[in-house]
Amino acid sequence: MKNTVAILEKPGKMVMKETDLPTVKDDEVLIKVGYVGICGSDVHGFQFGPYIPPKDPNQTIGLGHEVAGVIEKVGKNVINLKAGDRVCIEPGVPCYKCEFCMEGFYNVCPDVDFMATQPNYKGALTNYLAHPADMTYHLPDNMSLVEGALVEPAAVGIHAAEMAGDLLGKKVVILGSGCIGLMTVQSAKLMGAAEIVVIDVLQNRLDKAIELGATATFDGRDEKIVEKVKEIIGEYGADVVFETAGAIPTAKMALQLVKRRGKVMVVGTIPGDTPIDFLKINREVSIQTVFRYANDYKKTIDLISKKRSYF
Amino acid sequence: MKNTVAILEKPGKMVMKETDLPTVKDDEVLIKVGYVGICGSDVHGFQFGPYIPPKDPNQTIGLGHEVAGVIEKVGKNVINLKAGDRVCIEPGVPCYKCEFCMEGFYNVCPDVDFMATQPNYKGALTNYLAHPADMTYHLPDNMSLVEGALVEPAAVGIHAAEMAGDLLGKKVVILGSGCIGLMTVQSAKLMGAAEIVVIDVLQNRLDKAIELGATATFDGRDEKIVEKVKEIIGEYGADVVFETAGAIPTAKMALQLVKRRGKVMVVGTIPGDTPIDFLKINREVSIQTVFRYANDYKKTIDLISKKRSYF
Amino acid sequence: MKNTVAILEKPGKMVMKETDLPTVKDDEVLIKVGYVGICGSDVHGFQFGPYIPPKDPNQTIGLGHEVAGVIEKVGKNVINLKAGDRVCIEPGVPCYKCEFCMEGFYNVCPDVDFMATQPNYKGALTNYLAHPADMTYHLPDNMSLVEGALVEPAAVGIHAAEMAGDLLGKKVVILGSGCIGLMTVQSAKLMGAAEIVVIDVLQNRLDKAIELGATATFDGRDEKIVEKVKEIIGEYGADVVFETAGAIPTAKMALQLVKRRGKVMVVGTIPGDTPIDFLKINREVSIQTVFRYANDYKKTIDLISKKRSYF
Amino acid sequence: MKNTVAILEKPGKMVMKETDLPTVKDDEVLIKVGYVGICGSDVHGFQFGPYIPPKDPNQTIGLGHEVAGVIEKVGKNVINLKAGDRVCIEPGVPCYKCEFCMEGFYNVCPDVDFMATQPNYKGALTNYLAHPADMTYHLPDNMSLVEGALVEPAAVGIHAAEMAGDLLGKKVVILGSGCIGLMTVQSAKLMGAAEIVVIDVLQNRLDKAIELGATATFDGRDEKIVEKVKEIIGEYGADVVFETAGAIPTAKMALQLVKRRGKVMVVGTIPGDTPIDFLKINREVSIQTVFRYANDYKKTIDLISKKRSYF
Repeated sequence: MKNTVAILEKPGKMVMKETDLPTVKDDEVLIKVGYVGICGSDVHGFQFGPYIPPKDPNQTIGLGHEVAGVIEKVGKNVINLKAGDRVCIEPGVPCYKCEFCMEGFYNVCPDVDFMATQPNYKGALTNYLAHPADMTYHLPDNMSLVEGALVEPAAVGIHAAEMAGDLLGKKVVILGSGCIGLMTVQSAKLMGAAEIVVIDVLQNRLDKAIELGATATFDGRDEKIVEKVKEIIGEYGADVVFETAGAIPTAKMALQLVKRRGKVMVVGTIPGDTPIDFLKINREVSIQTVFRYANDYKKTIDLISKKRSYF
Repeated sequence: MKNTVAILEKPGKMVMKETDLPTVKDDEVLIKVGYVGICGSDVHGFQFGPYIPPKDPNQTIGLGHEVAGVIEKVGKNVINLKAGDRVCIEPGVPCYKCEFCMEGFYNVCPDVDFMATQPNYKGALTNYLAHPADMTYHLPDNMSLVEGALVEPAAVGIHAAEMAGDLLGKKVVILGSGCIGLMTVQSAKLMGAAEIVVIDVLQNRLDKAIELGATATFDGRDEKIVEKVKEIIGEYGADVVFETAGAIPTAKMALQLVKRRGKVMVVGTIPGDTPIDFLKINREVSIQTVFRYANDYKKTIDLISKKRSYF
Repeated sequence: MKNTVAILEKPGKMVMKETDLPTVKDDEVLIKVGYVGICGSDVHGFQFGPYIPPKDPNQTIGLGHEVAGVIEKVGKNVINLKAGDRVCIEPGVPCYKCEFCMEGFYNVCPDVDFMATQPNYKGALTNYLAHPADMTYHLPDNMSLVEGALVEPAAVGIHAAEMAGDLLGKKVVILGSGCIGLMTVQSAKLMGAAEIVVIDVLQNRLDKAIELGATATFDGRDEKIVEKVKEIIGEYGADVVFETAGAIPTAKMALQLVKRRGKVMVVGTIPGDTPIDFLKINREVSIQTVFRYANDYKKTIDLISKKRSYF
Repeated sequence: MKNTVAILEKPGKMVMKETDLPTVKDDEVLIKVGYVGICGSDVHGFQFGPYIPPKDPNQTIGLGHEVAGVIEKVGKNVINLKAGDRVCIEPGVPCYKCEFCMEGFYNVCPDVDFMATQPNYKGALTNYLAHPADMTYHLPDNMSLVEGALVEPAAVGIHAAEMAGDLLGKKVVILGSGCIGLMTVQSAKLMGAAEIVVIDVLQNRLDKAIELGATATFDGRDEKIVEKVKEIIGEYGADVVFETAGAIPTAKMALQLVKRRGKVMVVGTIPGDTPIDFLKINREVSIQTVFRYANDYKKTIDLISKKRSYF
């Protein structure tokens, strides 16, 4: 049996390449890929090459990391999964033993092997995929493979919301309502936020935000936006502001909207230098960058399966 | 204008007594009482006298502390409230300045003056009530006075759930489904718990628990209850167990159901000595007593008003 | 008896003015001032006027807020203090009842009345001072009035270190070794930090830092400073970096020195816009502004008195 | 080359047995044992057999888990250690991949293989020992092998103190001043506790506690002990009480000494049922069991090496 892998030959050009099936190690499973989501980072990779290009010019580059499929076979040490199981996978395999892994923060493991990026540049856009069993998750019967492929971005929203701490009854603002913004809306709702104000410039996304739990939305181009948002969340501002748009203007807006002792969660990828006037946020505001997820897949799957949200 | 106050003459006997209207200090409001909820502690007080009887035998004793009404007039320093406002009140007035108050834990202020208990034994079962404005909360238009009176026990559930920490995707067991148990069910649901297993011995209460968000219920008399609950929440047990029944057998059951590094939240009033074998919970379990609420009224009202739960 | 008060007539010019003794309210004490420390903000106020100038042009402006003295008399409600007591004071009097005060964060109370700033611009450079008893702290016999006046900046260091969380065995970098930097050095040492690297450009300050607990010091002008510091604290950088210098270059350096999941504590007053490239700190770094102190005076006095540090 | 291993033939009788040298796997090191500390659990094991006896009656049983030595050789994947290195080891090897390990709490891993207990009952009382390299720690030049063997109990104290949270300026009581109690004294001192009151019944241990940082000591048989301790730590009691004596009477005393919102850390092994009257600790007290340590070795070694305590 052969495998087919999509390879990025150069920016703008992908080719299908026939290869051998991947070897399945004792602790791994072989997955027949069902669905792969296309992340913004995949689009960027397709257009411009990976954020961090490989040193070896002969390194082949694959894309895709939001993936679900069906197990074809399992390595000899694998006991919790079996051929035929419908699964999704966590695309980053950490080293398990560095100080970050040992403390539970394997998402920031310096040696993590994350799909479609260094060190191995293996992507999910392939027919068959070998993956460690402990990073492969069984999908409940009531979840489709499409939903399985979306567990990855959902876990980003779950991780961001959870890292913001207790949201029960809190006033939350979410800047940006793309995929990650919408996942964060649902996560904040799921955690009991009282107000979830979403800001974007695309009306159809804002409509979707309302459908998924936003309590109010605004067009980010409104010049009086800070005043208008504060009419809803109160004069002191938001307990938590999530920046998911990945842009300097929204990062600056976040600082105008956050409350004394509030938190700004930087979820988006913000290129360039954001100017920050610390005197304007000197009443114990914190700014926290958020990176992927850790220990979030099981609960994300569980919450989707139990219809605890619209994920 | 005169006031009428229900006074506990002796256990089992309340009398209505006509008095002057209470004096309204500059920072206080005068409230015409609309509804008063009857708490288990009121029932206990009526049957046996207050838990901590007054030292002065001439001290009159009132009951009731779950209360909503309409403002009749306001003291001269009060600016955020006005006559005609529909309000509920927080029945404990702390000293504001002791170390516990200054650190934000005014619920454990040693000098708190809590309705129907020491030092003043003033109850809410009265026509008119003077109360500090900062402990009086405006009710939104879409909330009734009955709902206003129920903010107090709802805040107990909110406080207990919030004190347990992050519940998103967690497996929760709630022992007891009386008023506080049911409030805790809703609070856990509101915070995104994935499983909420409720145990009681009264089927009608368990039915109500399901209606309010429980994912499974059990009769506490089932001899195989621990095994059965673990079939749902997993072999290691619950992330958090809330004891709301206030009984030694349920406290002991809580310790059997809690996971390594899990939490037992003691919300109920457990009389007598609970025997605890620490060797059976030595994998970093914590047991935490929970007392009333602090800084929970605004968010509780907000969440009810926004229909974020069935409270 | 008359009082003498130093008044800032205009930037650069202070005059001594005779006034009546301040009125002592029931909850206040009258203090004969012993020593007043001069803070950087006092120097700034003397040179340029207060950071936030009064709206009323007739408002007199005093300076000084690091103060200790002896109680002259006490208001009628004061029971814990008496005439003759040696005391220091917390210069900010909060409202006690806003949401920030009620949650224990009275340092960010929007209505705090902090000495030498709005709303009252009363300074400690005066012979007699009336102050709320609950913000007045008895000095143990083994502490001098000079030490008492230094409790204020010491509390800033204590608050900053404590807000950084657990420092036991951690690698800490402190940027700036002025008064606040040195207080932070001692606080970090007191909390058990394993490495305390201090960076400044003045050698005498760095020498003092070593004396007070720094484990290594560097001249901030060294071009290879990041590499050199990482030779000591490890390749991933510092668990916590305290910016106490209040300058954009040190704020930028903080971001180069902090570890994945590490914290940058912004203690200094940084004027202007600090450019922040979030992509360089996207592995879950947090940046936290720190403001004054709350609930820190008692422990600061206790620690100084017990010689638990060189404060 | 041969190995000699101390085997517990039956309770009360150990024999020396000659065996082959242990096999060294690719990720392991072979250590020539230098010193082995004798823990209370070893004494118990020697007298009565292991707490949890092996199911297989032919299983040989070793004792000892506080160990330091010199590396004899290293497996082929080991890069950070080499023959001749002086090291100490963490005696529990977790599975690295269960939910507890992945969240950073590998000390409660259900499958941990901890020396001298299940599943393998291998003890440190042997000449040569094979151990995973990532659980083997290089000793700095200024630390002796004896100090290396004591890193294990020191890490217990460090873990207990750190798990109690911020101790800066706090009032701490430690019940029991055996090895773990004394390690906890030093850890609490290292974290900046303002009062460290130690209670035991052996005067020589109390003397040692004073030497290591206790601020006061009491004989536990004193009938007025609670009153006397509160004279020192204040009427409300201790912020944190560490139970390290492992006895029901001290567990009960802990509950009498702890403050509203305070913590009781159960470090000792308390056999039998401790009766707990929750009504007496209902002002938000928490009781937390503590188990071994996780991610504590590096910092413990660092702190000892830097003379940050008397360990």
